[in-house]
Amino acid sequence: MNYCSHCGAPVSLKTPPGDNFPRHVCDRCGTIHYQNPKVVVGALATWGDKILMCKRAIEPRYGCWTLPAGFMENNETCGEAAVRETLEEAGARIALEPMFTFVDLPHISQIHIIYRARLLDLDFQPGEESLEAILMSEEEIPWSEIAFRSVSYTLKAFFEDRRRGLFDLHTTSLSIPVPENYR
Amino acid sequence: MNYCSHCGAPVSLKTPPGDNFPRHVCDRCGTIHYQNPKVVVGALATWGDKILMCKRAIEPRYGCWTLPAGFMENNETCGEAAVRETLEEAGARIALEPMFTFVDLPHISQIHIIYRARLLDLDFQPGEESLEAILMSEEEIPWSEIAFRSVSYTLKAFFEDRRRGLFDLHTTSLSIPVPENYR
Ligand SMILES: [Zn+2]
Ligand SMILES: [Zn+2]
Repeated sequence: MNYCSHCGAPVSLKTPPGDNFPRHVCDRCGTIHYQNPKVVVGALATWGDKILMCKRAIEPRYGCWTLPAGFMENNETCGEAAVRETLEEAGARIALEPMFTFVDLPHISQIHIIYRARLLDLDFQPGEESLEAILMSEEEIPWSEIAFRSVSYTLKAFFEDRRRGLFDLHTTSLSIPVPENYR
Repeated sequence: MNYCSHCGAPVSLKTPPGDNFPRHVCDRCGTIHYQNPKVVVGALATWGDKILMCKRAIEPRYGCWTLPAGFMENNETCGEAAVRETLEEAGARIALEPMFTFVDLPHISQIHIIYRARLLDLDFQPGEESLEAILMSEEEIPWSEIAFRSVSYTLKAFFEDRRRGLFDLHTTSLSIPVPENYR
């Protein structure tokens, strides 16, 4: 951040009175520009024993597999974001179930939240950001080609919970970036 | 938002290719400036049968009572934010317990997340943003002077869960702004 989005003057990094962190403060109008973590929301949608997975048509992780998910928008609820992203990325209509995983990623200032969901029908097709949208059984999950660690974490927790017959909320922090070849 | 925070040129509202929402896009460098919901995190910290409450020394809701809470910062986890805010607003050290309430407030593009917690000692005092920080029993909660609906929701859920002896995650959406005199 170099300029004030309110008045266009340059900003400087300084700690405002009563604050504990340096902020971008406008040299002219004094506006304090806070920067905060972003929330990514998605759905693990099932049909029978299968899960709806998307192959990414965009970077990062082009060609890798993920659950439908994306940045939460202003003026929507977290659940609404999960429903919207599933429609956008997989063309799929779902009925949302409880929040399933809540993953902190402090090194990139993100929270990833995945809800469980049920597909309402099989009339779905990949959206613009997906190369494919298909149903996979546990045996078909391409573990070495999963796009994000929060997705691998969610899939593993889902299969474990399904085996014991009880779904909990799973929370974790994936704080240490791992090398490209270890995901 | 009037100016590009990257290059200082004016921005215009337009829907980028492949996007579904209008964004502030820089007329010169093309940077797309996304705006996303913010996460507020706090703690319901107990000592025996009492709860740590803070009387606000700042607007909004100056003089009303709240749980220690505030905006999540970049490069911290949600739980770390709860611990930090409790230290800043009540000077109190806590051991965090599981996430307790998750409240969507889409009309102001916020999520409020409150964790349960245990106070580690009784050596606490109000921080700069609090007039008082005290322990209250259920009978002492000033229901008509609670600062935010998400706090009332959290306190009610806590007392109900404590009576039945089982704490769950409670999620809700408080989407409709209510009049000043009904909180
Ligand atoms: Zn300015
Ligand atoms: Zn620009």
